[in-house]
Amino acid sequence: MERHGLIIVHTGDGKGKTTAALGLALRAFGAGLRVLILQFIKGKKDSGELKALEVLKNFSPTIEIKQCGLGFITKENFAEQKKSARSAIELAQKEILSGDWDLIILDEINYAVKFGLLDAPEILSLIEIRPPELHLVFTGRDALPELIEVADLVTEMKLIKHPFQKGIVAQSGIEF
Amino acid sequence: MERHGLIIVHTGDGKGKTTAALGLALRAFGAGLRVLILQFIKGKKDSGELKALEVLKNFSPTIEIKQCGLGFITKENFAEQKKSARSAIELAQKEILSGDWDLIILDEINYAVKFGLLDAPEILSLIEIRPPELHLVFTGRDALPELIEVADLVTEMKLIKHPFQKGIVAQSGIEF
Repeated sequence: MERHGLIIVHTGDGKGKTTAALGLALRAFGAGLRVLILQFIKGKKDSGELKALEVLKNFSPTIEIKQCGLGFITKENFAEQKKSARSAIELAQKEILSGDWDLIILDEINYAVKFGLLDAPEILSLIEIRPPELHLVFTGRDALPELIEVADLVTEMKLIKHPFQKGIVAQSGIEF
Repeated sequence: MERHGLIIVHTGDGKGKTTAALGLALRAFGAGLRVLILQFIKGKKDSGELKALEVLKNFSPTIEIKQCGLGFITKENFAEQKKSARSAIELAQKEILSGDWDLIILDEINYAVKFGLLDAPEILSLIEIRPPELHLVFTGRDALPELIEVADLVTEMKLIKHPFQKGIVAQSGIEF
């Protein structure tokens, strides 16, 4: 079959952008693809997805998750976070060029752009340097128009209704 | 923590409805929840997600996937499919009442409604009979307004761009 590395974007204000990327990782892993998840924004250290990915990784080391260490941005930590974003993009470049992966998920990378830690040329250069067979997934709300322009598959996750609106607290194992 | 079974709906014309449900299954499994995926529409027998779920299941039998056996509907097979849909809904009822699961994903159940194999009261009764702590996920385009009305978390996956529009063939391990 003709192998064509897809540029995939999950954006919008709804739930499911990262969750659908995790589902994609699961499917791709099962199909024998080598999958790397780069989390641009720090996640919970004991999250369900980390534990489940650990199980898959013990079975075959063809799935990996790495934290790029960006936290939530405040006025006070902006300079520090900008430095972290630089390291994160360098890590992404290195992994993209490594030839070690068939699918790389750049989780919440759009967030780093939205808040001015990364700019459009930095994001687009990741696409330009990639081997043509590598699939790349960009998640996060407010995806750049330039990113949507070059992407192959773009889905907007749109919030129709959220349990918070009913006063229900976030449910462990489901929402986080 | 207050445990409240969420009614979750993934609908819309975009990719990611089933994929996000798979991601949710991964996260919930990792968080120690017992997860059942009921596939209303027949999937590929050698799909990536089935293989990956097999790996998780070997680690802990708290995740399970069952096929309800509905195929694509034609004029010729409608009566037969309607009978299968009846068995499928009975299986769903049995599993919901079993107490064996914390999360049940009714994958592509909306499809069975859209094509007249199931009706609104049958779908809504699944919600009414459930133990209050059980999370239920309904996927598929054209979710019933009555379902959206009673749901807690509704996301519309909206197609912005698809590789088919660029003439790229569907990519194994990513799109199926």
